[in-house]
Amino acid sequence: MANSHAPHPYYPPHVAVQGYAPNTLSVVALVAAFAGVIAAFLVFTLALARRLSPGLKRRRAEQAAFCWFVLCGFLHCFFEGYFVLNHAQIPGSQDLFAQLWKEYALSDSRYVTSDPFMLAIEVLTAIVWGPLSFLVAIYIAAAAATTANTRTRLQRHVLQAAVCVGHVYGVALYYGTCHFAERMRGVSYSRPETLYYWVYYAGLNAPWAVVPALLHYQSVKALTHVDGGAAKKEQ
Amino acid sequence: MANSHAPHPYYPPHVAVQGYAPNTLSVVALVAAFAGVIAAFLVFTLALARRLSPGLKRRRAEQAAFCWFVLCGFLHCFFEGYFVLNHAQIPGSQDLFAQLWKEYALSDSRYVTSDPFMLAIEVLTAIVWGPLSFLVAIYIAAAAATTANTRTRLQRHVLQAAVCVGHVYGVALYYGTCHFAERMRGVSYSRPETLYYWVYYAGLNAPWAVVPALLHYQSVKALTHVDGGAAKKEQ
Repeated sequence: MANSHAPHPYYPPHVAVQGYAPNTLSVVALVAAFAGVIAAFLVFTLALARRLSPGLKRRRAEQAAFCWFVLCGFLHCFFEGYFVLNHAQIPGSQDLFAQLWKEYALSDSRYVTSDPFMLAIEVLTAIVWGPLSFLVAIYIAAAAATTANTRTRLQRHVLQAAVCVGHVYGVALYYGTCHFAERMRGVSYSRPETLYYWVYYAGLNAPWAVVPALLHYQSVKALTHVDGGAAKKEQ
Repeated sequence: MANSHAPHPYYPPHVAVQGYAPNTLSVVALVAAFAGVIAAFLVFTLALARRLSPGLKRRRAEQAAFCWFVLCGFLHCFFEGYFVLNHAQIPGSQDLFAQLWKEYALSDSRYVTSDPFMLAIEVLTAIVWGPLSFLVAIYIAAAAATTANTRTRLQRHVLQAAVCVGHVYGVALYYGTCHFAERMRGVSYSRPETLYYWVYYAGLNAPWAVVPALLHYQSVKALTHVDGGAAKKEQ
């Protein structure tokens, strides 16, 4: 491990990063490896789901939703779970996930400083939203089965709605804390270059504002759909 | 305004609080005034709701839920909205809400330091969860009306479920950020006395972990209730 006063590329420049060691892999290699792992995981889980729930095959939108929640589950449980377990060692580590976090942290140094807000939100993401994302994916597959009953479909949307609210709220707080750190404290956690600020920080998180909003709307429609005027008893 | 280096009672002791001026009202007077304002608001809104939606009168649990969301709406829009608009002036101000915030901040100094996390979460609470809490209260009253249709009842529970997820997630992050600030930075935002740590910090926020969990369960039951085996079409 390098010593704690080694120079580092993170913002703000004076921030203390313990034991920083520069990445050994190129950005292209890191992104390719990560994309490969994720693609393999998605291909495998989607194939498994289509096999176990053949009804899924005919429903493109549902397959896309399934893949979205599997992606969320993977990132939350494994990638963000890695951060939760190893945050203090990340700056000096060289395994794939550590190098990916060091690269991403160029756009948000809180990931290499054991920031209390990052830890709080990532712990909840890894242990609550990650498993629930996988559960939604399972429910999507189950609800697409030809034998699926109405209750399964409703449960899927109740669960999907909850995860979507969590995602939108979480990403709003993620952007919000950065905004107010800059406005109130003059602290920017991101390097100013377009790649870091706009592509990593703004761009990579934006899907968690957009996709969950769309999926929440889908769930709201499904949950408030009243069938042919039949009175549904209030519980 | 006192100068920015005036001594103050907040934790950690070295934290900078701009322009602190001690409260002019006693704690008993502050709590009595706040409780009085809230009670008056609840009595008025509940009476109005019972008048407009007589069906509410016979439903004690629904009246309690109505009052809960009106309480949330009041606190989010007005009390927390006050913080959002006036956070920088609170330490030196003497109006009722400023004095209440100065008293509460003995258990969490982030409310007198324009903390970026507090600002991010309180802005969202004031402009999203506050109005939505009032909207849930309106839906509860509307759904209790004898003429209410099924769709209104379902919409109420979809909205209630979303607000409840927001509440539970928000309070988890509130406690979580304090926990990790203490664990990673050795920083406690609360004075150590029982009144501040256990009554204000732990106690006053705990209802937002418990009540929304119960109300979310109510909504889940209502939304996944399948009427007499009738098949409900997936949208």
